Amino acid sequence: MRVLSRNLLHLVRSHAARGAAATGGVRGHQTAPREAATPLVPNEPAAPKVLTAVPGPASGRHLKDLSEIQESNAVSLFVDYERSLGNYLVDADGNTLLDVFMQISSLPLGYNHPDLLNILNDPSNVKVFINSSSRLLPSPTWPMKLRSSLLRQIYLLFHLLHAYLLPGRLGVYRGSGEALQLGGVVALTSDVFQMAPKGLKHICTMACGSCSNENAFKAIYIWYRTKERGGSVDFTQEDIDSCMGNQAPGVPPTPASFHGAFHGRTMGCLATTHSKPIHKMDIPSLDWPIARFPLYKYPLEEHVRENQEEDRRCLEQVEELIHKYNSLGKPVAGIVVEPIQSEGGDNHASPQFFQQLQQIGKRTGAALLIDEVQTGGGPTGKIWCHEHFDLPEAPDIVTFSKKMLTGGYFCKEEFRPPQGYRICNTWMGDPSKVLMLKEVLNVINRDRLLDNVNETGDVLYKGLATLEQRFPQHINSLRGRNRGTYIAFDGNTGAKRDAIIGKLKQQGVHTGGCGDKTLRLRPALIFQPHHAHIFLDKLETVLTGL
Amino acid sequence: MRVLSRNLLHLVRSHAARGAAATGGVRGHQTAPREAATPLVPNEPAAPKVLTAVPGPASGRHLKDLSEIQESNAVSLFVDYERSLGNYLVDADGNTLLDVFMQISSLPLGYNHPDLLNILNDPSNVKVFINSSSRLLPSPTWPMKLRSSLLRQIYLLFHLLHAYLLPGRLGVYRGSGEALQLGGVVALTSDVFQMAPKGLKHICTMACGSCSNENAFKAIYIWYRTKERGGSVDFTQEDIDSCMGNQAPGVPPTPASFHGAFHGRTMGCLATTHSKPIHKMDIPSLDWPIARFPLYKYPLEEHVRENQEEDRRCLEQVEELIHKYNSLGKPVAGIVVEPIQSEGGDNHASPQFFQQLQQIGKRTGAALLIDEVQTGGGPTGKIWCHEHFDLPEAPDIVTFSKKMLTGGYFCKEEFRPPQGYRICNTWMGDPSKVLMLKEVLNVINRDRLLDNVNETGDVLYKGLATLEQRFPQHINSLRGRNRGTYIAFDGNTGAKRDAIIGKLKQQGVHTGGCGDKTLRLRPALIFQPHHAHIFLDKLETVLTGL
Repeated sequence: MRVLSRNLLHLVRSHAARGAAATGGVRGHQTAPREAATPLVPNEPAAPKVLTAVPGPASGRHLKDLSEIQESNAVSLFVDYERSLGNYLVDADGNTLLDVFMQISSLPLGYNHPDLLNILNDPSNVKVFINSSSRLLPSPTWPMKLRSSLLRQIYLLFHLLHAYLLPGRLGVYRGSGEALQLGGVVALTSDVFQMAPKGLKHICTMACGSCSNENAFKAIYIWYRTKERGGSVDFTQEDIDSCMGNQAPGVPPTPASFHGAFHGRTMGCLATTHSKPIHKMDIPSLDWPIARFPLYKYPLEEHVRENQEEDRRCLEQVEELIHKYNSLGKPVAGIVVEPIQSEGGDNHASPQFFQQLQQIGKRTGAALLIDEVQTGGGPTGKIWCHEHFDLPEAPDIVTFSKKMLTGGYFCKEEFRPPQGYRICNTWMGDPSKVLMLKEVLNVINRDRLLDNVNETGDVLYKGLATLEQRFPQHINSLRGRNRGTYIAFDGNTGAKRDAIIGKLKQQGVHTGGCGDKTLRLRPALIFQPHHAHIFLDKLETVLTGL
Repeated sequence: MRVLSRNLLHLVRSHAARGAAATGGVRGHQTAPREAATPLVPNEPAAPKVLTAVPGPASGRHLKDLSEIQESNAVSLFVDYERSLGNYLVDADGNTLLDVFMQISSLPLGYNHPDLLNILNDPSNVKVFINSSSRLLPSPTWPMKLRSSLLRQIYLLFHLLHAYLLPGRLGVYRGSGEALQLGGVVALTSDVFQMAPKGLKHICTMACGSCSNENAFKAIYIWYRTKERGGSVDFTQEDIDSCMGNQAPGVPPTPASFHGAFHGRTMGCLATTHSKPIHKMDIPSLDWPIARFPLYKYPLEEHVRENQEEDRRCLEQVEELIHKYNSLGKPVAGIVVEPIQSEGGDNHASPQFFQQLQQIGKRTGAALLIDEVQTGGGPTGKIWCHEHFDLPEAPDIVTFSKKMLTGGYFCKEEFRPPQGYRICNTWMGDPSKVLMLKEVLNVINRDRLLDNVNETGDVLYKGLATLEQRFPQHINSLRGRNRGTYIAFDGNTGAKRDAIIGKLKQQGVHTGGCGDKTLRLRPALIFQPHHAHIFLDKLETVLTGL
């Protein structure tokens, strides 16, 4: 366990470093500079503005109307998408709310970003939005669209030109390369940026997160059974007859998942989802292995030993379960895991946990699928959260959706089915979403949004650490990946968390819950330090008044 | 079986009536008038134009490129969506093909319809396309958008005004109302048109067909188990614990499906799909009841008794299976059926079959779900194919996608879950697709596209009946719902069907296959009689040269 403890210590250190400025009772968020408040989205409101209760009477009327035709028990607020801009949503009652939840982490550039609106000024782009093309008849520009978005590579030459032409605006991804800017010229110190997770060059697009996971699971089953067939693409008559009758196709492979996980709500995904009973109640499921995911104690630096022990216990259980199901004739073909369990309560695990998990997969012949549907696209300060784990090699499959606008997955070559029509549907995603993603990447690059996420994340984390120290009777367990705005903390109870979210709304700040008592922050990539200060001020007001 | 035989005879009569002009060796399609060839889409090409082999070298190059990054075994042709227009696709080699398959029945108005392109001239519509909003934060205009698209009602006043202002262009849906045009004034003889299937006022939107079916299944499970709880919304601790561990939530409900069915490719859908082994191979499934779907002999008028017998056998088996699974402790909560089995080979069944199926559901306590993902939106000459069945009451759930642009389902009120968050995901469809659907309905109405579908369907059917009589050594089993362009025929073998599709492509006509040896027609709603004649001419050339 020496390696494990070194990694866990690394996580601890980065947490501790972030929290450093917050120690000693200083109100960290007020010490940060406030002058640099130029919004990345021009004409964005300067502050929240609350005119009515939130939700107000207009939202109430719309809800009554909508409920007549659609089950709407989970809806409360109606949003005026015409008037919303940047980090601010305007609701049906005209209230202007700072959005720190951003459609469950879904809009990477916030509302009505001018560069995204602009792409529809190009008539050829309009045609992409209007013609929903099937997967079987791609456009000649489709490979190029994929290469310039999901498989984007930024080469040295591009960087040099960019540096000469726009020296002040050079954006360098920090994903897999490091760059030094020397008088307007860029020297790349290692490899150049690539959008796809390192080591994964193959992709499959899908319409949504659930379909991405469902089809990634299928890719794993097919890979596993193809291995069993020694690579043959011929099926036996028994294989054919049994699968057509819903009977075991040979030995049916299973995925292993974790308690607290959320991978979606279609049947296959739901059988690997274990976050809340209301998601699963009454829906048929399958007896698939479910292991314990680490539940750390916070602050990490005060619970190093317990958390190392928790890692060890969980890893042991994963491996035991895989052996058990293998011996029961339900071979485990894959391990399905979120890099941060999000719906389940923002549960983090150490880089070492994931490194060991990958090793367990290798020892047992199970693929490793990392579900980055909620974490992917930049909010952790890297495009992919699993980049923080320093895995010795790429995960086998990485799924995405939400901030990526299109769903889909990256995979190693051996996870491409050997025949057509196996992973297929009519649309397989929407080229217009890929077009939007390309523009999002342009803006991330131009406006250095990953730098912004890390700067803002520091302000948020330090400010929250101060508030956690001042209000231990209300909040605790502040946590976040070492960089970025993907941050959460717990209310002392679920009711207190709900009260904080509700009162923040009356203060003009929209946040979201997850797990039993967690408040999660999921702002857009354009959420800047001055937005973080507004959020922290409002939270302080709420905590003071509780 | 007296009622059954009357209904089957009705189906026979309508088939026979369509075929009447085709008897006697007349080349039916050449006797129809050809002068009225004004395309509904201005500037549409006048005819196919083939410059290279199809697919040509450019498609080959793009395929090689795409294959490097994406599994593309099912792809052959690349389509230039910028240059494609109306019923004509232009491929990467500049070939202009008449598209009688239209993205697997998906584009209701063909390529780049000017009215659809036009909606993006409105800046407020552009914002709908750019802001992917979550289901939990709808726009205030969302209820209105639903009412003006999926739940559209056309009232008497609207019709009268429309008739006065645009007397020559009055479009009257034939769905559930009948209209007489009297000197520019409309008298409605029964109820007015409504878009939603009669009796279904509640809706749920989804991104794609698979998600629509997955969630409709969930609505059925929840409905079934809520009934078992006597309507209570409280769960027992045992319910909660068992579902979180993937164990049987009480008694797990199951759906009954049919051999030959296709309901999608995510795990729940796939367990009700039984069309081709390549779809299901290696994917875990569940032991759910699968009944035989009628496989009729054609021409229907020569096989009345056998086909009646086939209906009876299949219905008996459905009911037996439901009783069997109920007694095995796997209660059947729903019957899932396509109105025409499409991927499975365009297998039709009589109205009486569906009427009796609905009765079986009522007797056994199972809901009836009609999957109109491929049939819905007009191609059968009515908006919903099941309108042809004269069911005494509405099916419990109707799912849709493809031509409707948005996925989703209509349902009776009792199929709305009693709690929120049970049927839910981040996006739950895309408001921009609903916006497009609204415009599609405007065009259907203005251009009387259901009338066009029926007129064109007659030309197609009669012409094909003639060709079937002339070339019995090549094709047989012509079939189609009594109105509309949703028509198919078989090649004498699968290889012959494939040869016909391939040679049609070289003639500039794009069609598709289904089942083992079926060629299916799935043109857009703007496919006019003159397009039908072009298709028939090219098919005649191909069949002559075989």
